[in-house]
Amino acid sequence: MSNRELRVGLVGAGLMGSDHATRIHRRISGASLVAVGDPDLERAERAAAGIEGCQVETDPLKVIEASDVDAVVLATPGRTHEPLLLAAIERGIPVLCEKPLTPDSKSSLRVVEAEVAAGRRLVQVGFMRRFDPEYAELKRTLHAGALGRPLLMHCAHRNASAPPGFTSQMMIFDSVVHEFDTTRWLLGEEITAVSVRHPRSTANAPSGMTDPQLVTIETASGVLVTVEIFVNCGFGYQVRCEAVCEGGTAQVGGDSGMTTHVRGAWGGSVAPDFRPRFQQAFDEELQRWADAARAGGIDGASAWDGCAAAAACEAGVAAQTSGARTPVQLVERPGLYA
Amino acid sequence: MSNRELRVGLVGAGLMGSDHATRIHRRISGASLVAVGDPDLERAERAAAGIEGCQVETDPLKVIEASDVDAVVLATPGRTHEPLLLAAIERGIPVLCEKPLTPDSKSSLRVVEAEVAAGRRLVQVGFMRRFDPEYAELKRTLHAGALGRPLLMHCAHRNASAPPGFTSQMMIFDSVVHEFDTTRWLLGEEITAVSVRHPRSTANAPSGMTDPQLVTIETASGVLVTVEIFVNCGFGYQVRCEAVCEGGTAQVGGDSGMTTHVRGAWGGSVAPDFRPRFQQAFDEELQRWADAARAGGIDGASAWDGCAAAAACEAGVAAQTSGARTPVQLVERPGLYA
Amino acid sequence: MSNRELRVGLVGAGLMGSDHATRIHRRISGASLVAVGDPDLERAERAAAGIEGCQVETDPLKVIEASDVDAVVLATPGRTHEPLLLAAIERGIPVLCEKPLTPDSKSSLRVVEAEVAAGRRLVQVGFMRRFDPEYAELKRTLHAGALGRPLLMHCAHRNASAPPGFTSQMMIFDSVVHEFDTTRWLLGEEITAVSVRHPRSTANAPSGMTDPQLVTIETASGVLVTVEIFVNCGFGYQVRCEAVCEGGTAQVGGDSGMTTHVRGAWGGSVAPDFRPRFQQAFDEELQRWADAARAGGIDGASAWDGCAAAAACEAGVAAQTSGARTPVQLVERPGLYA
Amino acid sequence: MSNRELRVGLVGAGLMGSDHATRIHRRISGASLVAVGDPDLERAERAAAGIEGCQVETDPLKVIEASDVDAVVLATPGRTHEPLLLAAIERGIPVLCEKPLTPDSKSSLRVVEAEVAAGRRLVQVGFMRRFDPEYAELKRTLHAGALGRPLLMHCAHRNASAPPGFTSQMMIFDSVVHEFDTTRWLLGEEITAVSVRHPRSTANAPSGMTDPQLVTIETASGVLVTVEIFVNCGFGYQVRCEAVCEGGTAQVGGDSGMTTHVRGAWGGSVAPDFRPRFQQAFDEELQRWADAARAGGIDGASAWDGCAAAAACEAGVAAQTSGARTPVQLVERPGLYA
Repeated sequence: MSNRELRVGLVGAGLMGSDHATRIHRRISGASLVAVGDPDLERAERAAAGIEGCQVETDPLKVIEASDVDAVVLATPGRTHEPLLLAAIERGIPVLCEKPLTPDSKSSLRVVEAEVAAGRRLVQVGFMRRFDPEYAELKRTLHAGALGRPLLMHCAHRNASAPPGFTSQMMIFDSVVHEFDTTRWLLGEEITAVSVRHPRSTANAPSGMTDPQLVTIETASGVLVTVEIFVNCGFGYQVRCEAVCEGGTAQVGGDSGMTTHVRGAWGGSVAPDFRPRFQQAFDEELQRWADAARAGGIDGASAWDGCAAAAACEAGVAAQTSGARTPVQLVERPGLYA
Repeated sequence: MSNRELRVGLVGAGLMGSDHATRIHRRISGASLVAVGDPDLERAERAAAGIEGCQVETDPLKVIEASDVDAVVLATPGRTHEPLLLAAIERGIPVLCEKPLTPDSKSSLRVVEAEVAAGRRLVQVGFMRRFDPEYAELKRTLHAGALGRPLLMHCAHRNASAPPGFTSQMMIFDSVVHEFDTTRWLLGEEITAVSVRHPRSTANAPSGMTDPQLVTIETASGVLVTVEIFVNCGFGYQVRCEAVCEGGTAQVGGDSGMTTHVRGAWGGSVAPDFRPRFQQAFDEELQRWADAARAGGIDGASAWDGCAAAAACEAGVAAQTSGARTPVQLVERPGLYA
Repeated sequence: MSNRELRVGLVGAGLMGSDHATRIHRRISGASLVAVGDPDLERAERAAAGIEGCQVETDPLKVIEASDVDAVVLATPGRTHEPLLLAAIERGIPVLCEKPLTPDSKSSLRVVEAEVAAGRRLVQVGFMRRFDPEYAELKRTLHAGALGRPLLMHCAHRNASAPPGFTSQMMIFDSVVHEFDTTRWLLGEEITAVSVRHPRSTANAPSGMTDPQLVTIETASGVLVTVEIFVNCGFGYQVRCEAVCEGGTAQVGGDSGMTTHVRGAWGGSVAPDFRPRFQQAFDEELQRWADAARAGGIDGASAWDGCAAAAACEAGVAAQTSGARTPVQLVERPGLYA
Repeated sequence: MSNRELRVGLVGAGLMGSDHATRIHRRISGASLVAVGDPDLERAERAAAGIEGCQVETDPLKVIEASDVDAVVLATPGRTHEPLLLAAIERGIPVLCEKPLTPDSKSSLRVVEAEVAAGRRLVQVGFMRRFDPEYAELKRTLHAGALGRPLLMHCAHRNASAPPGFTSQMMIFDSVVHEFDTTRWLLGEEITAVSVRHPRSTANAPSGMTDPQLVTIETASGVLVTVEIFVNCGFGYQVRCEAVCEGGTAQVGGDSGMTTHVRGAWGGSVAPDFRPRFQQAFDEELQRWADAARAGGIDGASAWDGCAAAAACEAGVAAQTSGARTPVQLVERPGLYA
């Protein structure tokens, strides 16, 4: 990997886009946000606020074509994607495109054909579940083979409530699209057919929508995938997937990490050492420390905390050998640490 | 926060130090590694390998004193910390110091006094549990007050096996030190006394060590904390903490995230929407995409995956209204995506 | 309830029948087994062995018509049930009939009509899930209404392996029949339609059977119930049911008792006091003590155990006030308790 | 086992005693309640109400000495036990004695000596946890040896609130006494010493009591057992025990049955077939059917339920082969089943 910082242009500064702006600026190593494009200027400016040297555009194409933009994050509505993707492919720069790629398969195919013509894969679709630790563990488990071939999957995809204007079609295009992708990705094969059934609907669904719906997916090898999509489930957000294989099952998105049922036992795995268990804590610690250090300070346990821990350790070691309750000797806390 | 990159010097390139080198280089936003110091030159060079412009030193002080180093990560053994910390305080730069601060409370106090004299907090101790999502949630829960005042805590700290040379004293200084810090941090008060008891020891303990040990911690307000430290427990790594309060309990480090027992019910919380549930996935997705984009490519779902998902969505929407099983129409996969 | 013992006749001494024989003889209060009928005399004699005064018949009808039989347990294959049930209705005695009632709805209807003609409900079908503590709690929860109206249910019914001779039809008649009944019982409404789909089959299915199968049940109010029936799942026996309602979900047959997801939280209930928590233990204790007492002895903690507990309690109370480790004073264990 | 019914006399008709009266009368096979003795005549009569032929006494000794009493359940306060136990031993009849055996070890020893003199074990102490399925599984697991030798146990024993008049001493004698017995029973060795510590107390404790308390038990082989006793914990009733062994841990009383941590995995076991999974349901089904049958009726799924299930099965089998949604044909429900 080159040492040079990746200069990212963001197109679309709505909910998802502004989230990505913060993420790129604050949490992603080796990348900086240099341009934000949104027809709504105020929104674009809000997303770029406080980011030194980040330009703002109302024409998305200007972001894609800017000479100092190395790569693009595309977070506008799906119907606007096609020309923007084609422009990026034309320029030969990588794009992270929030799903959907485009709103229909014909236009999607045109994007594919443009990539094929260019001879390089430049477009990545934002199916983020592929990066979720539990889904990744499920894929590793299925591929390791100890559970045998997958036969069925049972999925539930539930939102507390759908945003205003959410339609029955969007339940497929915006929600079940994730199950379409995880099905293909987990099983490594194409989807061949889809069925949808409508159970009794919740009274909380807006008029014109039946919710929940029950989608059944078939794959080339005959695996059936049931998907409950329920966008007004009321209680919270839940995404669950259970793979039923010839020799056992594996489930993610439950309340206990990935669990399996195999050979008379159910359960999960224990971390072998502190690194997997606390990796996220180490990352967070270093990121917050670096943020604070750039301002000349710290953000975590202080020298005083280290001193108090040392005093407790000394009492602990004395108690180890004496067997007696050992008071901790600690000076008064200096005002600096009040 | 300034937009300028934080130039980090790393002192100590052992297991922990080289982990941090990779972390700073690959995962931390706004920071880059500019120097590595370790008396073992080869180790220092290994940690710096592939990081453009990263200098290597065998004298740790040279790293701390380098004019282009803005902040230091200190990952050498505890006994070497004091002079290095004093040098950093002298220079007025932030240090992230892996625990322990120093090996005893007298020298720790000297570090504190140097900071007090400098009038700024510059030293952060690497108690990473404060950044663990579950511990952070436990602290929020205790402070929110719905469980009432804490009365007792029960902790278990278990390692599959201790490294060679690990001693009984190190069980306190290297392991229980984390429980000393989390006790102080979670409860917001000082530790007043410590007791240690020795149950029957595992046959897997090296001679001269009794393992497990049972440590009891008392705090200023009278909370008792039991800590089982077991560094050769055999089955894996496990760090658990249950706070027992006047109105209920909260436990972290179990197998199901933070759970509580309160008012006749046990359980955990459900994410309100997709952002907390998939935050880690989004971070990982963007980081890996940025890494790939710097090399001109992608690392995730391709345009073909987006096209296949669009075709499935179209079949799904047709099935929604027809009620019939609907085949998915998909062209042949182009060779680019083989 | 009368104080008089119920004299039970058992018809069918196979796996299920002989289980019931032991159960009635050993665990059911107020009932005794007085007759066993099975065309296989040896099997009948084995089931009746050791039960004082229990007669044996090869003609099942003789058991039903015996004047000292107050009630009948019917555990023969379903195809033999009709005439036996009609005979019991004719005699006016209660029957517990293992499922199925009869192998088809026409013959079942004749049994119903005979009961209607007799004007009394005498036939009970052995749908034992209605008596499972978790299913009973699920029904109470659905009826309490806090979760709102049910919309969907997801069921899994898995056996480690099917017995030889088990057919695809039996997957419906012997296995899914339980989900048919629990659906009707939990929801309090009739089933209106059934669909079945065949995913890729396990290699462990005998030839001529596809396994697993995916059954979808519709009810009068429009609730959809998905049932995965998998009779060669390999890993063990698992029966699971999740009810998805307007305001939350409730699941039984998982690994943690009944759990719900509602209003941003997941989890289960905590026993209010020791009686629900240890009710099964008390029942088992008393039953085993009564069994032992009939032979003049005990089966549980001895007087010595009580004495040792008293000595520990005395040390405990002394330690409560002294704060010191207090040795337990205990005489040598008498030989009687060796 | 003899076929003759065990005639049980109950001494003490308080909360526990009247529970046992119902249990013996309604749930225990081969036993009937023939006498109830309590100084409070009204209480005794309430416990005996509706039990044909059950006599009532105000002098407990009369129950023990009644010629038609084969065995005694003793549920009076512990301070009254000694003379009653000695009388039963004198008569040579089995006694199930609610804990404690007697209130102190000297008097307990006199009971032991009387049994030794009689040469038979007749007294059983009501430590019901030995009959709890999870504790029984824990004992089997510890003895099977796969986890290695036990080194530590961690117990929590929590009540929502203590009854009025409950004292600090009773926390040991009435509550921790269960942990004393389970420690001895699980580990198969005697307790050698006890310590007690007092953390900050809940504001919900009555004056004069500190609650919770932390009890540490030592056994002959050096196992340490920590017991948190908390009789006003507020949230419910919870009894938990984790055994920490050389090769792993096993925990009962959590929220998921017995779970273990061993060789890099955590979890529990899956039932091999329907009998262990539904044993309790079968027992309950048969008991309730027998109760109903004695009154000439049934209590469970009716013939109509069997008929409706048969109709659904027929539709299911048709759907299996047709692949089509198949309506269920069902006649109107007869009035008898309304």
